Amino acid sequence: MAQNIYDRPDFFEGYSRLRRSVEGLDGAPEWPALRAMLPELDGARIVDLGCGFGWFCRWARAHGASDVLGIDLSEKMLARARAAGSDAAVTYARADLGELSLPKARFHLAYSSLALHYVSDVARLFATVRQALVPGGYFVFSTEHPIYMAPTNPGWSIDAEGKKTWPVDRYLVEGPRMTDWFTKGVVKHHRTLATTLNALIETGFTLGHVEEFRPTDAQIAAMPELAEELERPMFLMVQARR
Amino acid sequence: MAQNIYDRPDFFEGYSRLRRSVEGLDGAPEWPALRAMLPELDGARIVDLGCGFGWFCRWARAHGASDVLGIDLSEKMLARARAAGSDAAVTYARADLGELSLPKARFHLAYSSLALHYVSDVARLFATVRQALVPGGYFVFSTEHPIYMAPTNPGWSIDAEGKKTWPVDRYLVEGPRMTDWFTKGVVKHHRTLATTLNALIETGFTLGHVEEFRPTDAQIAAMPELAEELERPMFLMVQARR
Repeated sequence: MAQNIYDRPDFFEGYSRLRRSVEGLDGAPEWPALRAMLPELDGARIVDLGCGFGWFCRWARAHGASDVLGIDLSEKMLARARAAGSDAAVTYARADLGELSLPKARFHLAYSSLALHYVSDVARLFATVRQALVPGGYFVFSTEHPIYMAPTNPGWSIDAEGKKTWPVDRYLVEGPRMTDWFTKGVVKHHRTLATTLNALIETGFTLGHVEEFRPTDAQIAAMPELAEELERPMFLMVQARR
Repeated sequence: MAQNIYDRPDFFEGYSRLRRSVEGLDGAPEWPALRAMLPELDGARIVDLGCGFGWFCRWARAHGASDVLGIDLSEKMLARARAAGSDAAVTYARADLGELSLPKARFHLAYSSLALHYVSDVARLFATVRQALVPGGYFVFSTEHPIYMAPTNPGWSIDAEGKKTWPVDRYLVEGPRMTDWFTKGVVKHHRTLATTLNALIETGFTLGHVEEFRPTDAQIAAMPELAEELERPMFLMVQARR
C-alpha cells in the first residue's frame, strides 16, 4: 500500500491552497507543455491516474472525451472531485496506483499528472497501463524530474553573489527519498530518467516525445519567479504509444 | 567548421595519456554498458563517428564486422589509427561531423563515442546517420551527459564534511559551453536530454535503450575513485533503430 499523504489534514490543507489546486490546469506552469503532447480527444475514453480534484477529467470531457475514469488514492480529493460537478460520463474511483488493475484495451489515453513519483514499482504500473490501452493508444504523463528528486537535500544553494545552483547527488542511487512537503516524511521514489524510459520501452511502449519542463519566455515575463526553473528541470513529461 | 581541439599539441599530448587512450575500450568505464547496447556484429558494415585512435574500429573487425569506416576530424588521431594496423576492411576518413555526408542505406551500425557534444547541429547529423543506415539498422552512441555539461562551473562542490555535490545551473539554457580540458577554450554544445531524444524521434529513429552511466559495484570495488560517479551521470548512452 502506498503512503497516503493527501488525506492527512495538514497536507490536504496546504495542498488545497496551491495555485494548481485553486485555479486548476491553468495554474500549473507545465500544463501547456503537457497539453501539447495529448492526442485528439474527440470521442476518446480516458483514464486519469492520480486525478486529484478532477480538473483534468472535467477538462477532457469539455474537450470531447466520451468518458473519463479518474483514479486516486485520496478520499478527500475524490470527494472534492465528485462535488465539483455531476457528469454521468466521468467516474471517480479509489485505488492505489501500485496495485491497480484496469480492463483490457479500453482506453485511448492514459494520463497522469505528478503521481508516478509516489509509485515504487513503476514497471508494474506501466504494464497495467499498456494492456488497458487500445493499440495505438497514448500514455501521457508528468512526474517529478529525477534531477529535482535525487539530492539528499533537494533545494537551492545560493552563493555570496546570489547565484542559484541546484546541488545534485545520489542521482544514480535509486530508491525512496523522504522530504517534508506540507507534512513530515513524504516518501517519493527516485528513478533515473533512463530507468523510467527503459521501463516504458521494455513494456512495449514506443516513445513519442520527452519534455523537461522549461517555462516559456512569456511565462517568465508574466511570472518572474519562474526564471529559476531554467536552472534545473522540476518536471519530466513523456508521451508514449502502445 | 567545428573546433578541432584534438590537433592542438597540448590537447593531443594530454588526451593521449588518458587511460582510454592508452588501454583502449577497456580503459573506459562506460564501455561495458555501451557494448551491451550493440547489435550482433557478424558481417556488419559499421561507421564510427569520431573514431579517434580507431580502438572501436579494430575491436569491431575482431568481432565479426565485415567493414568499418572510421571518421574523425583530427589528423593526428587518424594518423595514429592508421599506424595501429593495416586491415583493408577498415578505412579511416577525415570529416567534420557537422558537415558530414554518408551513402544511403549502407551501414548496419553507426557508432559514436563521446563526439556528439562537439556537434552544434545534432538534428542534421541524426538525419545523415538515419539515411545511411539500412532499415532496422542501429545507432549506438555515448555523449557527455547534460547534467555534466550544463553548469556554468562544471565541477564538484565539497562541503566542510567532505560531502560532494554537483551544482547544476542553466540546464534548460541550451547552447555552447566553454571549458578548459588539456587546452583553453574547449567548446561543447549543451542540449537537454529531452532535446537529444526528441531529435532522434523526429528524425524517424525508434528509441531502444537509454543509459546514464553508473559504475557497477565491481568497478567501484576495483577502482574506488569511481564511487563519485554515483552522484551525477557523466555520460549519456543511447541505442536507437532506423
